[in-house]
Amino acid sequence: MSKVISVNAGSSSLKFQLFDMPSEKVLTSGIAERIGQDMGAFSIKVDGVKHEDTLPIPDHKVAVNLLLDALIKWHVVEDLNEIVAAGHRIVQGGPYFSGSVEVDEDVVSKVAELAPLAPLHNPAHLIGYRAFKEALPSIGHVFVFDTAFHQTMDEDSYLFPVPYEWYSEHKVRRYGAHGTSHDYVSHHCAELMGKDVKDLKIITCHLGNGASISAVDGGKCVNTSMGLTPLGGIMMGTRCGDIDPSVVIYMMKELGCTPDEMDILLNKKSGMLGVSGISSDARDIADAIDKGDERAIRTMNLYVNRVINMIGGYYIQMGGCDAIVFTAGLGENDIALRQSVLDRLSATMGVKCDPSRNNVRGEDRLITTDDSKVAAYVIPTLEELMIARDTYRILGLHE
Amino acid sequence: MSKVISVNAGSSSLKFQLFDMPSEKVLTSGIAERIGQDMGAFSIKVDGVKHEDTLPIPDHKVAVNLLLDALIKWHVVEDLNEIVAAGHRIVQGGPYFSGSVEVDEDVVSKVAELAPLAPLHNPAHLIGYRAFKEALPSIGHVFVFDTAFHQTMDEDSYLFPVPYEWYSEHKVRRYGAHGTSHDYVSHHCAELMGKDVKDLKIITCHLGNGASISAVDGGKCVNTSMGLTPLGGIMMGTRCGDIDPSVVIYMMKELGCTPDEMDILLNKKSGMLGVSGISSDARDIADAIDKGDERAIRTMNLYVNRVINMIGGYYIQMGGCDAIVFTAGLGENDIALRQSVLDRLSATMGVKCDPSRNNVRGEDRLITTDDSKVAAYVIPTLEELMIARDTYRILGLHE
Repeated sequence: MSKVISVNAGSSSLKFQLFDMPSEKVLTSGIAERIGQDMGAFSIKVDGVKHEDTLPIPDHKVAVNLLLDALIKWHVVEDLNEIVAAGHRIVQGGPYFSGSVEVDEDVVSKVAELAPLAPLHNPAHLIGYRAFKEALPSIGHVFVFDTAFHQTMDEDSYLFPVPYEWYSEHKVRRYGAHGTSHDYVSHHCAELMGKDVKDLKIITCHLGNGASISAVDGGKCVNTSMGLTPLGGIMMGTRCGDIDPSVVIYMMKELGCTPDEMDILLNKKSGMLGVSGISSDARDIADAIDKGDERAIRTMNLYVNRVINMIGGYYIQMGGCDAIVFTAGLGENDIALRQSVLDRLSATMGVKCDPSRNNVRGEDRLITTDDSKVAAYVIPTLEELMIARDTYRILGLHE
Repeated sequence: MSKVISVNAGSSSLKFQLFDMPSEKVLTSGIAERIGQDMGAFSIKVDGVKHEDTLPIPDHKVAVNLLLDALIKWHVVEDLNEIVAAGHRIVQGGPYFSGSVEVDEDVVSKVAELAPLAPLHNPAHLIGYRAFKEALPSIGHVFVFDTAFHQTMDEDSYLFPVPYEWYSEHKVRRYGAHGTSHDYVSHHCAELMGKDVKDLKIITCHLGNGASISAVDGGKCVNTSMGLTPLGGIMMGTRCGDIDPSVVIYMMKELGCTPDEMDILLNKKSGMLGVSGISSDARDIADAIDKGDERAIRTMNLYVNRVINMIGGYYIQMGGCDAIVFTAGLGENDIALRQSVLDRLSATMGVKCDPSRNNVRGEDRLITTDDSKVAAYVIPTLEELMIARDTYRILGLHE
């Protein structure tokens, strides 16, 4: 049996999922959190049971060893040699990677070089990679890039209207995000429709705490909302998305803050949290809406408006749309949000949401009526599985 | 006869147009340029003949007196008392003005207060106003705001997804621009269609060196692309429009520049000029395209893409569109641009451009086929006339 581990290493966390391949069975999943803080937490789910520990986790190396010990302790594996490979999620692959790759020194140095474009993510990914490499020296490693799927965009979609040298000399362009998710859900949507993805125009809405919308024409990304870093595009839980850049300049002067301080305000204090003053979590906003809270109502109205504006732009750009897919936290679970978005698309795009079909959370489902001109689907994203699949395929593994 | 002068005072320029009212006949127009520089220029057009002078114009007061002397010299008026009122274009009226108003001290102080939101414009407008007030102490004055028409937007269109205090305490919101133009062309479009503007959904594209697109539903603006200042929205001649704000932060750090320096780069070195490296003038870009210049082709592709993305957003937001209007420099004169934009709207919105009708510059004209699902028009904007009309109306003037 080949076991492949999917790894998502953040600056203070390490998420993992272990797959049996090629059966794609999930053997276990878990997370080490608050790495480097006084007190951390480790949890692992085995056979439906979640085991949690609170303990200091000084660094990612300790986190990896905790995880490997737990795999043995809970009899997920009897021998660590059963794990043949690790696939690592990498947020920023810049212009270098249009697909997943086996890791070598050149790959590592490119990911390190791109750190300024993803300062919270790329360095952490490399720390996680090195910790696994040290703990399991003989296994293969693959990097799977959030940006790879978006490398098919043309320059009229990926350039910003700024001095061209910012692109040619400073790598400033739209890179996109959640590419593994957009890739998976668009292709899986075609399967659910019983059609060839090459014949379809699909708008994929990855609406999580981070969120992006992509225009996928013939299976290839032609535009996506996320920009240079995961701050751009549509409004998110705590991030503002695309705005008039004079807001940034004006408020830096009003508040007397540095670029780094402004970066935090736009990344951590904006979006749903900033507008509502309540929470970055759409569930809390929904609860407040139920109580008639005006700030909460305003927040969701703004969110929906910015989502439909983006969808409309891609609808026109592709010259049509056969299907819309909702995925990630809100996309999979926020029934009212999906209904609101689809209702706003009905007059122009002929989308007809079917409320009884839409009454679903976290499973593959058509949510429009049979006579809807554009089909809409909920498709839970499976980024971890996609990482494991790419890893298994690229390393040429066999049973 | 009542003569009303329309005034557009910039930091180093003063544009004017003198109307006979209520006949709306243009008696003369002209501009004082490079005010405050070593050498300025003054030109005035009388009976189709342009008279030009090169001379130092130390300040706006001198410019106004040059203008008044020229009116007498060229027999546009025999006596300055024939001028009964001045209407002044004001770029930023903030949340205070949803229509034109007669000027009093409170109005002046509000326009002054809003200077941080339009630092290049509002102070200059007041300098122009004071110069006219001093030169013609007995006439009436009206301020006509670029932002007034956009005050009908709902908060789900005018708020940015940033901390709410930025709006409530620092006035950060979408104010829009070119409101006088969007107002005029949308209402005039309804007249050309022989319909009541209340029954129409119109997308107005004011595409000049500065540019904005508005969604006008039932005669009221429901969304517009321009933001806090004239930097936001779509790509322009030298301005970038809406972008991922992390581009601003990243490049400030890369270049080590201040907010004010970044402001100049985004306002003066971006847009068509920045992407093409050729010019901010679409005519120069078009010439380069004719020679096969790849940077020029890229620039116009990017521009068109950002225009159609914006149109698509408003099409969905309004739940339909009956007409599209092109106005301002590019909108009125760039035949190829209009064709490119309309062609990209055909598959989804059913727009059919009629190339022979579209072969027009600077006159009111339907440019789509009779069976086009959405009508498109060229309508030259008449901001100066609208200013004169509002001035005449608000001051209760009569022949």
